[in-house]
Amino acid sequence: MNAPTQGWVVIAGLGPGDEALITSQVRDALAQATDVVGYIPYVRRIAPRDGLTLHESDNRVELDRAAHALDMAAQGRRVVVVSSGDPGVFAMASALFEALEAGPEAWRELDIQVLPGITAMLAAAARIGAPLGHDFCAINLSDNLKPWALIETRLRAAGGAGFAMAFYNPRSKSRPHQFARALEILREECGGDTLISFARAVSTEEERIVTVTLDEATPDMADMRTVVIVGNRDTRRVGRFVYTPRSAE
Amino acid sequence: MNAPTQGWVVIAGLGPGDEALITSQVRDALAQATDVVGYIPYVRRIAPRDGLTLHESDNRVELDRAAHALDMAAQGRRVVVVSSGDPGVFAMASALFEALEAGPEAWRELDIQVLPGITAMLAAAARIGAPLGHDFCAINLSDNLKPWALIETRLRAAGGAGFAMAFYNPRSKSRPHQFARALEILREECGGDTLISFARAVSTEEERIVTVTLDEATPDMADMRTVVIVGNRDTRRVGRFVYTPRSAE
Repeated sequence: MNAPTQGWVVIAGLGPGDEALITSQVRDALAQATDVVGYIPYVRRIAPRDGLTLHESDNRVELDRAAHALDMAAQGRRVVVVSSGDPGVFAMASALFEALEAGPEAWRELDIQVLPGITAMLAAAARIGAPLGHDFCAINLSDNLKPWALIETRLRAAGGAGFAMAFYNPRSKSRPHQFARALEILREECGGDTLISFARAVSTEEERIVTVTLDEATPDMADMRTVVIVGNRDTRRVGRFVYTPRSAE
Repeated sequence: MNAPTQGWVVIAGLGPGDEALITSQVRDALAQATDVVGYIPYVRRIAPRDGLTLHESDNRVELDRAAHALDMAAQGRRVVVVSSGDPGVFAMASALFEALEAGPEAWRELDIQVLPGITAMLAAAARIGAPLGHDFCAINLSDNLKPWALIETRLRAAGGAGFAMAFYNPRSKSRPHQFARALEILREECGGDTLISFARAVSTEEERIVTVTLDEATPDMADMRTVVIVGNRDTRRVGRFVYTPRSAE
């Protein structure tokens, strides 16, 4: 990182919730920052201190937040944009580069770094066992930024080719029927006896993990704080764990 | 974790190489361990100390190593199985559960935990920008444990449905032609102007990152220390970064 007089932007992953899952690289960036920006619940995970300004913003204003961060860095501030999990997985890194592309040419010379974090699906997988131990896909089930038909195409492609799958943003109040439809497609493509795990609020006090078959799964098992992991045909239980073998036919 | 007199197994992710990318949860487990087992180069990342026995083993003996770890835990040892990256992504977690399934019933009562780490594709993505910022797949290109035809099926399914992709173990001396074939399939499915990044030894002193188009890509750009990331049709450059937008049509 540059000398303190030079501005920079770091897009940092805070992991799924437990402070023990934050890397020391991210801790160091936070210790050097003058400003932290992010969605309200993520900024509230940062301890206030002298010399640090916390900028909370609402959900769905990612581009404004990113532009604000870049603008502050251009003025010499040391800015950390905080994401839950990993910033590169359905989080703030892409939004920041979209803002960079749309913004003044001079922003492209800024010192910008992405610092990885433990993304929700891998924290969930670790608690479940090893359900993503073979080839897998990560799919954002929200249709805010893409058509639902494309999500259906991807579910069929992934299920048909035997990928395990992790779903982010599986369900929200504004689209209650879509996750039911996703479960229908998965039953068709993967078979009703395939295992599906619902991992809510992993690594926090509210953590709750449930594994059932696709035939037993109901839409209300997921909410927006849940990561859903679907195995492939070989995924199975051993003791209290669920894992996907490394090999396939 | 249990009291020190009780044995346990932790399968821990050491991240891609930089010590600043290890979580404090993994550091704590290593500090409490009596034994560390793993593939030689990963065990060599652990500082020796009194009371800690380091057990190095060769590549391709994952099941033996896992059984050894479980056996030591059953005898009351506190064992950390170390993986590079995240243990749940093409690493030791699945192998350990395979050994658990094949071993004595009593092993299933052992205290076993998986601790996530920063997996290579997400460390690489962070250095590149945000190439996995939309739906993506992770595929192990080695045909040690699955037929090559299945890998081709998955490349076509993922490319055809517009997933970005990350490839582990893209190329080895024993199968020099397969990665060339993978590039051919990707050109057909994704288009020759799609961006592909080769990220070698990310976060180490030998880190080298190259981004070209699929038309420009040659097999010798990858080796076994390389993670390869292929974007989707919207993946593009902004300044020195490569990113995949959050939205799709």
